[in-house]
Amino acid sequence: MPLLLSWVDSANFSDCPFPLNNLPCCVFATGDDTRHCAMPIGDHLLNLASLESAGHIVLDGGPLLNGPNWNRFMAAGPAVWAALRAQVQRLLATGAPERILIEPHLVPLAGTKLVMPLEVSEYTDFYAGRHHAFNVGTMFRGPENALPPNWLHIPIGYNGRASSVVVSGSDVRRPWGQIKGPNDEAPRFAPSQRFDIELEMGAIIGTPSENGQPLTVAEADAMIFGYVLLNDWSARDIQAWEYQPLGPFQSKATATTISPFIVMKAALEPFRVSTPTREVPLLPYLVEAEPLLYDIDLEVALTPQSAGETVISRTNYREMYYSAAQQLAHHTTSGCAMRSGDLLGSGTISGPSKESRGSLLELSWGGKEPLVLNGGETRSFLHDHDTIILRGHAKGDGYTIGFGDCTGRILPALSDPYAR
Amino acid sequence: MPLLLSWVDSANFSDCPFPLNNLPCCVFATGDDTRHCAMPIGDHLLNLASLESAGHIVLDGGPLLNGPNWNRFMAAGPAVWAALRAQVQRLLATGAPERILIEPHLVPLAGTKLVMPLEVSEYTDFYAGRHHAFNVGTMFRGPENALPPNWLHIPIGYNGRASSVVVSGSDVRRPWGQIKGPNDEAPRFAPSQRFDIELEMGAIIGTPSENGQPLTVAEADAMIFGYVLLNDWSARDIQAWEYQPLGPFQSKATATTISPFIVMKAALEPFRVSTPTREVPLLPYLVEAEPLLYDIDLEVALTPQSAGETVISRTNYREMYYSAAQQLAHHTTSGCAMRSGDLLGSGTISGPSKESRGSLLELSWGGKEPLVLNGGETRSFLHDHDTIILRGHAKGDGYTIGFGDCTGRILPALSDPYAR
Repeated sequence: MPLLLSWVDSANFSDCPFPLNNLPCCVFATGDDTRHCAMPIGDHLLNLASLESAGHIVLDGGPLLNGPNWNRFMAAGPAVWAALRAQVQRLLATGAPERILIEPHLVPLAGTKLVMPLEVSEYTDFYAGRHHAFNVGTMFRGPENALPPNWLHIPIGYNGRASSVVVSGSDVRRPWGQIKGPNDEAPRFAPSQRFDIELEMGAIIGTPSENGQPLTVAEADAMIFGYVLLNDWSARDIQAWEYQPLGPFQSKATATTISPFIVMKAALEPFRVSTPTREVPLLPYLVEAEPLLYDIDLEVALTPQSAGETVISRTNYREMYYSAAQQLAHHTTSGCAMRSGDLLGSGTISGPSKESRGSLLELSWGGKEPLVLNGGETRSFLHDHDTIILRGHAKGDGYTIGFGDCTGRILPALSDPYAR
Repeated sequence: MPLLLSWVDSANFSDCPFPLNNLPCCVFATGDDTRHCAMPIGDHLLNLASLESAGHIVLDGGPLLNGPNWNRFMAAGPAVWAALRAQVQRLLATGAPERILIEPHLVPLAGTKLVMPLEVSEYTDFYAGRHHAFNVGTMFRGPENALPPNWLHIPIGYNGRASSVVVSGSDVRRPWGQIKGPNDEAPRFAPSQRFDIELEMGAIIGTPSENGQPLTVAEADAMIFGYVLLNDWSARDIQAWEYQPLGPFQSKATATTISPFIVMKAALEPFRVSTPTREVPLLPYLVEAEPLLYDIDLEVALTPQSAGETVISRTNYREMYYSAAQQLAHHTTSGCAMRSGDLLGSGTISGPSKESRGSLLELSWGGKEPLVLNGGETRSFLHDHDTIILRGHAKGDGYTIGFGDCTGRILPALSDPYAR
């Protein structure tokens, strides 16, 4: 598919993240926090709430875009998702006769306050990056026992905390927690000293499923509305002490940041790729009949308080061993109902090379090999006032599909968390 | 506190679970699934939605009782909770002049359809029973290494799945899942053969907390609205294969059943007891200034399809090593925001004796010592068509505080979960 041309000229460049081919979903806030569903086109936002209200968009079961987020629209299902995309692509296409009616619904993207595009129902995080699992396993158990015995059979996941999911641009405060070093006699309560990032993609569930009904991989894929960039902030020192035997808990509950734009599955269709070759056969319920992973270039940039940016990792979503559809199918095996607005983190996306690792834990090899940043500072884990930006792009035939930056800045820990 | 007398005569018996002292929160459905907030009194339900609508109940910020569940009321905070309790106790007290106005709002409890009393925002399950942790640890690692090293320092918890929480009376279908026995070469996808119960109490969060703000134990206790009985159904064979390294996932996602009545904290006030003596000192943020556990007698009954009931366990909530307030305080250490409607499972409540164990895994010692039921059948784990009932009672001075039965019946696994 080539670049689709729009009468919004700024959208017609091969490196513009928001051409007519993309049309991701976001929400902007005005005045006293009134929320508007919108889509970026070039350097503008198209206010879909006002467009629908004015009758230029008509959806089955509508109005669906007048709420504070995209949840009601997402629950309406694939036919409605396709209808909106087709209508907006027609209205914004070069030569569209409706241009004069649509222009008043455009607002400049620059300076607009983007807020959470969805209400997260529940948040699940997976552990599906082969290289990440091998790296972390090697650090903890040695290379012979790096992968847990179930890893090649199960898309391992655990439930996270939906209340801690925030939108790009939200500051993230360094957490306190129980920490016990290997040589400490007893744990202490202190700010995390090994606060980390995890570069992930998030899949967002659109149509819900029924309690008691496992889903095939194809059914699961059909329920996925779209994808976001996702940074699963992780306190490694808290994690190390707490995670046995029932998994990570407070180490992962400070914040999870998502990009402000949900890229709809339809926009990613040209970038579908297969998961890597299986090392052992999958059980039939996990086998994919078609490619369900995506070729999306990803990078992580770190900017200290008083120096410029360093790109500390470059990788690609296609490195995942399991697709989001496989993860979602597994998520329902027990009969677990999925709901509109559920968010599934892919797991940390690390490539095979050192510079393609998706966490500081891996990049600094547990702190043993600190990274050297542009400007000379070193990093094993995050320092106060560091800013992290995740970026993602799929490169098409003369166009780019972007997700917007997924940004967070580290605030110092509270000096006394119980002072009131 | 003695029995409070009501003009609803059936409430004035020492063994009635719903005297004027109790007034737990429930929701009943009528006709085309219209939902009504209500409280049981004796053998009747008081329709609070209609009572508030008629102006007999007046609450700050009201109406608060006209929704499909108690969430909006719970979020209103402790002063409003106390106001409702005081008003209902006055209106139902023996000799209340309003009796003639209130009587039309009573409906018989028998035959009424009770539904979910709340919308569960997120569900967290803990592992805070000393005897349970020791029993399970002994089975898996031997008695010397039974307790994980962090157990006496951290109220260990993990995030569960809110979409799978159901109300008492809901059937529970035996799940499929990945299972691999210790001698199997590879996992297979099959119905669980070791499907189990977990006897727990659930604490329900009323007032929300802010992101980034850890809570003291006292602040945490003040946010707790009330308690329910909770059965955390668990597929032990699925759990054994999946839970390393990130904790239980699908093994716990089939269903979690709660009692239909939320007993408000105020009703449990006379039954407060201290947690057991600490074996090692707690970090200061977890220390309780006052008793925050409760003396609540608990039992589990199992009824096979074609035989009578056997009570298979009798224990007490006071066996927990950590209170719900301690668990909640720990839950916020990382800055994790809590929301109205969050549900915290206590962890399995096992006492020190064999007959006080809260799961079949413990009662049958991993299947090695099957239970013999009345009528002669044996059980290691649940059979199809078994019915499980959890019961809980606090015994006061001439009165009883009951939670209602927490019931679930096992349906056979789907013959083909992917048949459509």
